[in-house]
Amino acid sequence: MKCTILLIGSELLNGMMVDTNSIFIAEILNKYGIEIVNKIVVGDKIDDIVNSIKYAKNNSQLIIASGGLGPTIDDITREAVAKALNKELLYEETRFNEMKIKYKNSFNITKNNERQFMFPEGSIIIENEKGSAPGFIVDDIACFPGVPFELHDMFPKFISKYVVDKGIDDKFYIKDILTWDIPESFLETEIIDIINSEPDIFTEFLAKDYGVLVRLIAKQDMKDKVESMKEKIYNKIGNYIFGEDSDRLDTIIIKKLEEKNFKLSVAESCTGGLLSSIILSNSGASSVYEEGYITYSNNSKVKNLNVDSETIDKYGAVSEETVYEMLKGLKTEIGIAISGVAGPNGGTLEKPVGTVYIGTKIIDKYLVKKYNFRGDRDNIRRRAAYSGLNLLRINL
Amino acid sequence: MKCTILLIGSELLNGMMVDTNSIFIAEILNKYGIEIVNKIVVGDKIDDIVNSIKYAKNNSQLIIASGGLGPTIDDITREAVAKALNKELLYEETRFNEMKIKYKNSFNITKNNERQFMFPEGSIIIENEKGSAPGFIVDDIACFPGVPFELHDMFPKFISKYVVDKGIDDKFYIKDILTWDIPESFLETEIIDIINSEPDIFTEFLAKDYGVLVRLIAKQDMKDKVESMKEKIYNKIGNYIFGEDSDRLDTIIIKKLEEKNFKLSVAESCTGGLLSSIILSNSGASSVYEEGYITYSNNSKVKNLNVDSETIDKYGAVSEETVYEMLKGLKTEIGIAISGVAGPNGGTLEKPVGTVYIGTKIIDKYLVKKYNFRGDRDNIRRRAAYSGLNLLRINL
Repeated sequence: MKCTILLIGSELLNGMMVDTNSIFIAEILNKYGIEIVNKIVVGDKIDDIVNSIKYAKNNSQLIIASGGLGPTIDDITREAVAKALNKELLYEETRFNEMKIKYKNSFNITKNNERQFMFPEGSIIIENEKGSAPGFIVDDIACFPGVPFELHDMFPKFISKYVVDKGIDDKFYIKDILTWDIPESFLETEIIDIINSEPDIFTEFLAKDYGVLVRLIAKQDMKDKVESMKEKIYNKIGNYIFGEDSDRLDTIIIKKLEEKNFKLSVAESCTGGLLSSIILSNSGASSVYEEGYITYSNNSKVKNLNVDSETIDKYGAVSEETVYEMLKGLKTEIGIAISGVAGPNGGTLEKPVGTVYIGTKIIDKYLVKKYNFRGDRDNIRRRAAYSGLNLLRINL
Repeated sequence: MKCTILLIGSELLNGMMVDTNSIFIAEILNKYGIEIVNKIVVGDKIDDIVNSIKYAKNNSQLIIASGGLGPTIDDITREAVAKALNKELLYEETRFNEMKIKYKNSFNITKNNERQFMFPEGSIIIENEKGSAPGFIVDDIACFPGVPFELHDMFPKFISKYVVDKGIDDKFYIKDILTWDIPESFLETEIIDIINSEPDIFTEFLAKDYGVLVRLIAKQDMKDKVESMKEKIYNKIGNYIFGEDSDRLDTIIIKKLEEKNFKLSVAESCTGGLLSSIILSNSGASSVYEEGYITYSNNSKVKNLNVDSETIDKYGAVSEETVYEMLKGLKTEIGIAISGVAGPNGGTLEKPVGTVYIGTKIIDKYLVKKYNFRGDRDNIRRRAAYSGLNLLRINL
């Protein structure tokens, strides 16, 4: 089954509002093996919405729409769906009164919300337990509010019933293989023969912040073949693979440290707290993360980590020697230290922007490695932070 | 002029890859008064891309495409554009050889990259100084690589020339007013009368990480009216406004500290390095940021910041008293300290998830304020970090 995700709202078209609803919807549709053909974002103009709906109808069997179900005059998804399908809008007064009573303790439904109970003829209402805007489905166009926590509650319930009704509830088997430090083009060259040997397994390469994914997707009854393809990929590029599915470098590190009952501390220069922030985005990190030093200035490296100021003078703040001493200044069993040139300024011929030294300490074993990252300041910092986690993972 | 933004790549359709390119493109198009009708995301399937291009062609005069220009077999934007326009793909060998020589010190262009020099007949090549994939424009379809830092370099140069060539270079006047700590719904209620009094000025509210924007857009000759509306908004909600246009809380703080020749240090508990990371995302921060302590454990608060362990025992790590002592442990003229419950665990009846104490130190003036943030862990940490910057801004 082919599906289009339709996001309605001028704020998604013009502003810097990042859409997360479509990601939520797509992840769930993928699991049901529903193919997403298009995501379309359209503003609050009725003709543009109508055109988008008609185009989506031509290219897919199911449309999931989000947004434009609010009570104000620029919320016109109801009108647009009715117009695209040549249907009347009908006011569901009984339903309005029922909801008013049912949710009187949770949220207010007032006269203003009456518009939200107008539905295209033939709609089935999708109840909203978290807010005043009910959804609806008509002619395989399912409309949901744009408010994420309402959508998150409504959509999974809706789709699990929808696939049963349509007789397409054969979830797909998805296996993500997560790599770090291997360029995407090299990755593809290395495993292209393995991929081509199984045309029934759909393969994707996904570049994320936290690594490059190889995603294998197949029908549930091909699970064994997916697993065997996975083994072949491990045999070929196992060195670069750090995990599967929901594994992340930060959660892997936390788990390993928990198991070994080790504490971690971190000394960050160019990453400026980013590495710590990634680890501490996990609630569970408190059991393993002891402390972090953001030693951005040379002075701070000397004061907080006992780096010898002569080392900095002689080799520079961005050097194997300085990072080694930063590591030595950390007091826990496990440590990570990073110093580099994140740019855009500060690069030299010898140490251009992107030069980063990353070190790990495991009890009394010290290791410092030099990296050359490409990209802008944000990219370099992000790659340095995850590379620090990966270096620790490999050595731990 | 109407425009469609076309994002090409299955990873944007299925995966958890958040699209930021379209936001970058949209912001710039807005400034030139180019109306965005649709954003369309499509996977790496030739027929789907061709259909999307044809639909976009019918609904807009300009298509900006991003993605699918890489060297691998699933990069098929070139082929799709040629097919949609019924044109041949031509190999630009001369151009390939030129680029190979020109960029030999920056990045490798090899035999593998030959595909990237195939262009639909009649294309004008858009040079890429940051990577191996050149862009091109043909029949008002302009194609750019999906790699953000390549696009960021190429697109602004392209569009500034394009609008001149098309004679539509009447940029709009855009004024962003940046607020912090004011709920969006309250903001709207406060200034709705001011907004409604000038129907020729288009107003948007944009909720961002770093604040809620009020964006005023009008034709260049209405600049004075926009400025006068801005003054009215200042008179009404000036307390909540921290800046305009490209101002950010972090850059404002850096500038203020530079002017006063003050150094900043930071003590972070629940934000775990995020506040420092935001400040240090600016290359210029090195002149004012001295050091940071991520004192996630109680032990670390005691050891690194001289917090009295009795204070923690008596009042808790999340308390006015502890944050006050964290501040006192900082050695620079200026300090920020944060301790809170970011959740999802660790909340109590007295201090539920979202309770955060934030303090600032300005020489010998200490201030600690209690906040109650809503949202998930990531939201709470992010709001805490920016609130720390805002509190310092107000008091500095």
